[in-house]
Amino acid sequence: MRKPLILVTNDDGITAPGLRSLVRCMKEIGEVVVVAPDSPQSGMGHAITLDNTLYSKRVIIDDEKGAPREYSCSGTPADCVKLALQELLDRRPDICVSGINHGSNASINVIYSGTMSAAIEAGIEGIPAIGFSLCDYSWEADFIPCEASVKRIVREALANGIPKGVVLNVNIPKSNHSEIKGIKVCRQARANWKEKFDKRTNPSGKNYYWLTGEFQLLDKGEDTDEWALANGFVSIVPTQFDLTAHHVIQDVNNWKLNEY
Amino acid sequence: MRKPLILVTNDDGITAPGLRSLVRCMKEIGEVVVVAPDSPQSGMGHAITLDNTLYSKRVIIDDEKGAPREYSCSGTPADCVKLALQELLDRRPDICVSGINHGSNASINVIYSGTMSAAIEAGIEGIPAIGFSLCDYSWEADFIPCEASVKRIVREALANGIPKGVVLNVNIPKSNHSEIKGIKVCRQARANWKEKFDKRTNPSGKNYYWLTGEFQLLDKGEDTDEWALANGFVSIVPTQFDLTAHHVIQDVNNWKLNEY
Repeated sequence: MRKPLILVTNDDGITAPGLRSLVRCMKEIGEVVVVAPDSPQSGMGHAITLDNTLYSKRVIIDDEKGAPREYSCSGTPADCVKLALQELLDRRPDICVSGINHGSNASINVIYSGTMSAAIEAGIEGIPAIGFSLCDYSWEADFIPCEASVKRIVREALANGIPKGVVLNVNIPKSNHSEIKGIKVCRQARANWKEKFDKRTNPSGKNYYWLTGEFQLLDKGEDTDEWALANGFVSIVPTQFDLTAHHVIQDVNNWKLNEY
Repeated sequence: MRKPLILVTNDDGITAPGLRSLVRCMKEIGEVVVVAPDSPQSGMGHAITLDNTLYSKRVIIDDEKGAPREYSCSGTPADCVKLALQELLDRRPDICVSGINHGSNASINVIYSGTMSAAIEAGIEGIPAIGFSLCDYSWEADFIPCEASVKRIVREALANGIPKGVVLNVNIPKSNHSEIKGIKVCRQARANWKEKFDKRTNPSGKNYYWLTGEFQLLDKGEDTDEWALANGFVSIVPTQFDLTAHHVIQDVNNWKLNEY
């Protein structure tokens, strides 16, 4: 049987330790091709490069035996997936995995997430896709405790398939392997960021801002990703890109917008 | 009674004709403050500026009587909304409107849309929000036929409220006013873009790509935004930012990820 073809990408850039961990895991499962941004793209949401040129080049990151084919790309995570599917891969991948992100993409963070935008882009193209994130922003984060869960989830996704129109958003708590209590399928918690702009003055006297903020959990449910993570579980949120709020269609119909 | 405070933004930039049309409409309804990108941000999805400085300045675009307070911002549409709410507005706006975009944000385009990311950002902050788009990419597009629908929808949204967790994605067909058949509340059509990368060689001999593509409608439903637009109706899709695919939670639970 032919090994599954696994497209690996991320938003922290092709040299990020989290991506190297994901490559290590995926090499045990299938044939790996990496197409990832040449520089960090965090907070890029589902951006695509429409008004600029895209460069891509073959790169060698490890030269050990069994090292995967790797390409860096000057674009966003969504660009990487588009370019991989149309130009760089010889056949359609069996799955696309994105990450492991340095930092949480749980709850409302999914909206801003480059990691998840890559997974969603693959999902739009009908390819099973999973975004993985570790709740640790550090570049020195320890990804080893993630690897058993990552491999388990990818193997099950390959065996069972992921329903069309859905991708998986997997977040992993920062902890030792022995502390991970299990894997929970969850809903996205309601949350937002309480922004604070740090206002400064540049050397020529012009004001500028840095965006900072504090995470606010607005949801006390015990079926959410935030609850799972706070209690030592890996969270999986099945995530869709049909954004229709079906339950609100009737409400807006009641506005009688066509009566004059 | 105090006039409603209306925050106006977009992704085509503060001087775009579509934004000027939206400002003209909103001045009839309330007190307008504009906070919009200083340059076009199309295809930016829900990007935010985390690793760069943000500049903002007060600008005067029209100097006619009743001209609104306007700020340009060096960031993305989502940044504009965050900065407006935290730093620039004196009080919480009653509604945030984004657009009128030069080009469709119907169906899968919502995922890539800077116009809608601004509306969603306001929605996350609990502010009623609507993104407006005209299905005409031209900078010379005629926005006059949109204006009656835009004003009608904003007035009804202010009167009725928009349910929490939902923003409206409004698309307007390219047509004369007399040709618009009415307003339909819809679901997001299933669609994708069939990418084509236009591969070229730069003057120093390096290959690069331009991303181009062709829209593919995958949905024959007559309750979709694409159907409405093709049949001369303005489409409204109630759009949510809880991306949980609730119907898939049980499927993934059946994977028995915790059994070893």
